[in-house]
Amino acid sequence: MTIHTHKTAPTQFVDANGIRFAFRRFGYSQIGVPPLVFNQHFMGTMDHWDPAVTDGLAEGREVILFNNAGIGNSSGEVPTSIPQMGANAIAFIRALAVTQVDVLGFSIGGMVAQEIAIQTPDIIRRLILVGTGPRGADMATSKFAEIFAATYQHPEDLWLFVHFSQSATSQAAGREFFKRKLQRTDRDPEVTERAASAQREAIGKYVSQREGTRELLGEIRQPTLIVQGSNDVIIPTANSYSLQQFIPNAELIVYPDSNHGSFYQYPELFVSQANQFLTWEREKGQSFPARAPKEL
Amino acid sequence: MTIHTHKTAPTQFVDANGIRFAFRRFGYSQIGVPPLVFNQHFMGTMDHWDPAVTDGLAEGREVILFNNAGIGNSSGEVPTSIPQMGANAIAFIRALAVTQVDVLGFSIGGMVAQEIAIQTPDIIRRLILVGTGPRGADMATSKFAEIFAATYQHPEDLWLFVHFSQSATSQAAGREFFKRKLQRTDRDPEVTERAASAQREAIGKYVSQREGTRELLGEIRQPTLIVQGSNDVIIPTANSYSLQQFIPNAELIVYPDSNHGSFYQYPELFVSQANQFLTWEREKGQSFPARAPKEL
Repeated sequence: MTIHTHKTAPTQFVDANGIRFAFRRFGYSQIGVPPLVFNQHFMGTMDHWDPAVTDGLAEGREVILFNNAGIGNSSGEVPTSIPQMGANAIAFIRALAVTQVDVLGFSIGGMVAQEIAIQTPDIIRRLILVGTGPRGADMATSKFAEIFAATYQHPEDLWLFVHFSQSATSQAAGREFFKRKLQRTDRDPEVTERAASAQREAIGKYVSQREGTRELLGEIRQPTLIVQGSNDVIIPTANSYSLQQFIPNAELIVYPDSNHGSFYQYPELFVSQANQFLTWEREKGQSFPARAPKEL
Repeated sequence: MTIHTHKTAPTQFVDANGIRFAFRRFGYSQIGVPPLVFNQHFMGTMDHWDPAVTDGLAEGREVILFNNAGIGNSSGEVPTSIPQMGANAIAFIRALAVTQVDVLGFSIGGMVAQEIAIQTPDIIRRLILVGTGPRGADMATSKFAEIFAATYQHPEDLWLFVHFSQSATSQAAGREFFKRKLQRTDRDPEVTERAASAQREAIGKYVSQREGTRELLGEIRQPTLIVQGSNDVIIPTANSYSLQQFIPNAELIVYPDSNHGSFYQYPELFVSQANQFLTWEREKGQSFPARAPKEL
């Protein structure tokens, strides 16, 4: 049996919820270790993940990449609400006929991952949230609108501004990431303007819902790892601190000199820490404290 | 040659700066790996460290515990300023005749560790700051005064309120910590009320110095790992977030359901992450970005 990698895994399809979902599944499955399902960022397809991250994590488990409804070669429409994106992701996960999964979500995918955990807690074992924020996230200092509205000499340069800091080291790490990312030649269609527009609307609604965030995050009972860059210009870093404060069993890691795509800047470190989190026996006797209400 | 442990390492003495410093040195020294010097918290001696942490880290390097001036069996007076405590610690480190050290500081010891790095950058390779804050730390929500002023059924119970959260899991972890800590029978004299009073004065002055914190932290060029509990009631958790934001090359880890002594609640996880930090080749091409000024 050939073990596929990020570069070679064939695109497969599965039908659920009236949607034909495109996905790729690869890695070394281990008894007792659930697969890890990746939820992608705004305007991203399966091809936008960093192979150093996906292949790195695939050494200890199966990883499953997919395009949610209306993205790339998946059918259907992008919903204009994050909870509906979560419902579609759950339909996809159920269609895989696995009993349990770990879930990683990046940016808007991290919002979707929170929805998956809230809507269907039984199917999720552990949660990794990268470069994201809660419902009602504070976007006051975000440069999301201007960075995505600008034009770039090379279109790919957009991602140097989204994912990496302006230091020479971080920008160099960004160009290394591009080399890794672009090795795969059999690529998904890019996200359409229509799809991006629906994603924008969903994000806008999600971050404007400031009521009840604390209670909602309190419902996430999975061990959760939150990873963020020191200065995320898309979803400001302080939102990851808020996630840590309000998800009952959450660990936060913030990397130096980094932006929205911090885990692409430190892929080996991230893989090592995420592996440790996913394999650590932290449930051992873990109960959840009754927490005094706090304001976000 | 016998390899000593936390429990068996003999107390040694070295003279510097007119002070006779008590210290213990043990572990597996490795070529090219500097020893790790531990700086202790308010009212703590060498005996207050968690052997799971000291012995855990001693598997990959020598660890050096010491009592700073006026603490336990070290001579001299406790200074009423953190920078002066830092100067004493530097004198102790120089007296060890090592070319370079890594430094760990916990609570007030973390403030001292920052001072060591600022006053003598050449001697410090990497820095670990646990349960601490910067000069001008925001202590508005701290319960420091009331927790240390209260009386407890068993005096040792004080540390259950200082180091552990009020959840059953965290309190149970605290009682496990006590068992580990109290195994050593050859113990230092406890900190005197006179010494504690000088420490209190030093902390008070340090946290009231709100000017110039950002510039001061910007001078710390060592790779720095900041570790904190989700709800530190002694030095509030948000101060660790500030440290991460203003030390140029700093990684932050915040643990769930934990308080001031988070690393005693998750000693294996901490040792693993601290080991990774101390051995990671993160200088590789690391340059420091020019940062726009930010307000703390």
